[in-house]
Amino acid sequence: MTEFELIARYFSRPDVAGTAIVGNGDDCAVIAPSPGNAFAVTTDTLVEGRHFLPTIDPRKLGRRVVHINLSDLAAMGANPRYALLSLTLPQIDEAWIAKFSAGLWSALDQFGVELIGGNTTRGPLAISLTAMGEVPPGKALLRSGAKAGDELWVSGPLGDAGWALYCMIGDIKAEASASQVAKYECPEAHVALGIALRGTATSCIDISDGLLSEAAHLADASQVTINIDFAAIPTNLGEPLASTEYAARARHCLLSTGDAYELLFTAPASQHAAVTELLRAQGLGGACIGHVTASDSAAKVRVLDAQSRPMDIEIKGWDHFA
Amino acid sequence: MTEFELIARYFSRPDVAGTAIVGNGDDCAVIAPSPGNAFAVTTDTLVEGRHFLPTIDPRKLGRRVVHINLSDLAAMGANPRYALLSLTLPQIDEAWIAKFSAGLWSALDQFGVELIGGNTTRGPLAISLTAMGEVPPGKALLRSGAKAGDELWVSGPLGDAGWALYCMIGDIKAEASASQVAKYECPEAHVALGIALRGTATSCIDISDGLLSEAAHLADASQVTINIDFAAIPTNLGEPLASTEYAARARHCLLSTGDAYELLFTAPASQHAAVTELLRAQGLGGACIGHVTASDSAAKVRVLDAQSRPMDIEIKGWDHFA
Repeated sequence: MTEFELIARYFSRPDVAGTAIVGNGDDCAVIAPSPGNAFAVTTDTLVEGRHFLPTIDPRKLGRRVVHINLSDLAAMGANPRYALLSLTLPQIDEAWIAKFSAGLWSALDQFGVELIGGNTTRGPLAISLTAMGEVPPGKALLRSGAKAGDELWVSGPLGDAGWALYCMIGDIKAEASASQVAKYECPEAHVALGIALRGTATSCIDISDGLLSEAAHLADASQVTINIDFAAIPTNLGEPLASTEYAARARHCLLSTGDAYELLFTAPASQHAAVTELLRAQGLGGACIGHVTASDSAAKVRVLDAQSRPMDIEIKGWDHFA
Repeated sequence: MTEFELIARYFSRPDVAGTAIVGNGDDCAVIAPSPGNAFAVTTDTLVEGRHFLPTIDPRKLGRRVVHINLSDLAAMGANPRYALLSLTLPQIDEAWIAKFSAGLWSALDQFGVELIGGNTTRGPLAISLTAMGEVPPGKALLRSGAKAGDELWVSGPLGDAGWALYCMIGDIKAEASASQVAKYECPEAHVALGIALRGTATSCIDISDGLLSEAAHLADASQVTINIDFAAIPTNLGEPLASTEYAARARHCLLSTGDAYELLFTAPASQHAAVTELLRAQGLGGACIGHVTASDSAAKVRVLDAQSRPMDIEIKGWDHFA
């Protein structure tokens, strides 16, 4: 099977009419946003052994690469439209590629995203996806709009994905539940929530690297201090958090491990009921987990205990080179 | 140095005002084409040992990744505007990164392209760039517009880059000239030519994989047969072509090796003088190298000798998995 046959068989749909002006199959695709919209654009690379385990089901990998990229669009309140795929493969393993492409298409179809181009090359397994979505220019959710007095929200429970990964690599000597493994392997891009938050959220980011480091990005960009109520963070790690053996690791999973892909956002306190209803309507187990204060030179992010006292926790997100 | 420091130091220019609605530093960039334009979008991944030799000067590599992507925009007649970079590095080697980013910026600056996002991760050295350019939707140069009666043109001499690579890896026991090595290491995206060809060229493609396979793409997309006059192909490989020892290899370089990044295009014969003048004005050593005939079941691409007899040559481009 040649490179061109591979692309034609697994990554093209010539018979499906798309909205791209020029679709897959020329030197470039040609696209334009609908009237009143701009494009939000993001790109991410997943490398084997770093962003996914070599044992991952290729269907889940195909799904995962789409959701991770679309999570960035969701964090901007953008509506996903187009994707370009760069696939680096050690060899042509048709069974693997068939499964990967099935997972990729199912995720693209879920959001009505057109695959408009890309390339295939030989090398150590890695996948780069560029995703583009539409958003009215002034309505994009930025990191920089949080104001003192705003509340801090998260779209769903945290900690499961990090916990599952530590269990899977044997770093925690426990068995992750199926739902925890699913949280790690099958993250869900909260696209509908991002769009619904346009005009309501004052700032937004997706949690790819860890709650505290993402909160720090919001604090930096908005020039505010972010206060997180530890006990308010929704999580399914209640049991390990209460145990002597696992409490420290569970807390780390909650605050600092990545792969959650929940949205972290701020909204005026006056919108509390509206945001609660938004989360409920979408079936998301999100919660208000803190509040924003004026920038405080002592700390840009504080985690508070049940008595509102700052807890002694180092803020550190994922660093690929640490 | 952390990942964020690396990006801030080498891949950000917060002080330079750009035209992006939201630039580098949020979950996504937000961009819109100028009125009357659409975006042409392309992505390419370069893997060490496959698309570049491990010995390449990182400055040249940074330059190369930009020109290779912009060559796809040039082939569509698009004006480059934005780029996103995904960089996978085995470790942080600051001296290497400083040189790579200097080469990258110099090439971006040459075309006024803004770097609006990307990501950095750890893994085997690979570079993915997504490039976006503007083109009025109906004016994009496609592969599919060639008509019987059109002439076939190439924007510059062919064969040098392939010849240089074979010499560098010891596959040809000869010394490549400095200008041949430069053709391989420092390809030039013919952006101005692509834009100038809007409304004149009937089809266009860039030669990344080899003259014959690119001609086959034009023939396929346009449903025509393409006839190439071997003797008309501009080249600096006259000496090896005339030698007994190297003639076959030189002919292979001319017809089938990639990395040339010249534009291959068709235009009505009535535009012969206009195209000649375009190439001359841009200082490009291009030439008319053939003509288009109605689709012929016997061959989609024919190479003709000085007596207009078909030469017996296999049409085969670069296949990453062959």
